[in-house]
Amino acid sequence: MGAEPHTNTGRAAKTRLRLVEAVRSTIEDEGAVSAGEVARRAGTSSATFYNYFESHEVAVAGAFDAAMVDLVAFVEHELDVAELLDAELTPFLEGWTWRAFGFFRENSVVFDLARSLHLRSPEIRTIYREREAEALAHYTRFVRLGQRASVIRDGDTDAMAEAMMLTSQGWNHPRVLSCERNGALHCEIVHAMAAHLAPPSKQGDPA
Amino acid sequence: MGAEPHTNTGRAAKTRLRLVEAVRSTIEDEGAVSAGEVARRAGTSSATFYNYFESHEVAVAGAFDAAMVDLVAFVEHELDVAELLDAELTPFLEGWTWRAFGFFRENSVVFDLARSLHLRSPEIRTIYREREAEALAHYTRFVRLGQRASVIRDGDTDAMAEAMMLTSQGWNHPRVLSCERNGALHCEIVHAMAAHLAPPSKQGDPA
Repeated sequence: MGAEPHTNTGRAAKTRLRLVEAVRSTIEDEGAVSAGEVARRAGTSSATFYNYFESHEVAVAGAFDAAMVDLVAFVEHELDVAELLDAELTPFLEGWTWRAFGFFRENSVVFDLARSLHLRSPEIRTIYREREAEALAHYTRFVRLGQRASVIRDGDTDAMAEAMMLTSQGWNHPRVLSCERNGALHCEIVHAMAAHLAPPSKQGDPA
Repeated sequence: MGAEPHTNTGRAAKTRLRLVEAVRSTIEDEGAVSAGEVARRAGTSSATFYNYFESHEVAVAGAFDAAMVDLVAFVEHELDVAELLDAELTPFLEGWTWRAFGFFRENSVVFDLARSLHLRSPEIRTIYREREAEALAHYTRFVRLGQRASVIRDGDTDAMAEAMMLTSQGWNHPRVLSCERNGALHCEIVHAMAAHLAPPSKQGDPA
């Protein structure tokens, strides 16, 4: 992320990590980056902030990349075919969607702020494109393994994964972030995804 | 839309409409608002532009509102239960989703630009919230009438409409805007929505 002379040393990498996490928490709490507040949270100085981030935009890009890395890890670990085999499709998706809403709730402002810079920041567009491709690979693996185990219907694996990912991207929306667990909207989101993925014999399952 | 001294007279309203349409086409073609280019397209002057829009942000808000009005009208007219009764669920959704993708393709940059101003413009947030509520009312009516005609499954009408609308909001995405008609991704999007809405007896329909 940008030119950082120190990233090759372990100590600088640790400072950067601490700063990036401070940028994320500052954005979530305050809605924007403030060098002074980030430095306070990271236990360092504003000068150090500017040493690592040449501008607020670069700081947002760093926070966005860290949030996207967490999202990719979330998809990799939580979209777990073993858990799916254990739980049946609808209960699995109930839990998975709810945890995904929680992830978006915790990172909502970072995503919104990155989105607001999307048009003018090539760096943020690149992060989005590359991390989305990583997330898609995990969706695809989940669908493929579910198909092999006959708990997800046959079909175009790549396109099914892509449709599933596109749906999940819409969850960073106030209506979803404020919905109640097992409330009407949550149940419909689960039902829609279950109906999309279920093998023909399972489509009569109650949602 | 901001303070405009002339909006009560028919001529000023016509000029404003022409300017707003010029703002929309300028944004779609050039990616940003330029007063000179908008004025040229509207057959007027930059001074007139600034007479109607105190800033570029106000001009984007005007273009965004016009695009949202068109989106609401699109949902109202194209999500037509008579056509659904005529065509069966999957073929109806195939045509409807494809026309919706076309709508987003034509208005994609205006939506992206409005999104980039969302956090700092209370006016754009208000437009989004109010027009979204209007669109949702049309989705809800469609689901309700489809349920009465037994071509959409029973369920929580409001939540089904909301889930459908949230899914459609995700279609302003490069992967969707560049997909082929009846290609793999388009078919999955149709299949997912049909599986969500179909009555139990229809869920075995081929997508």
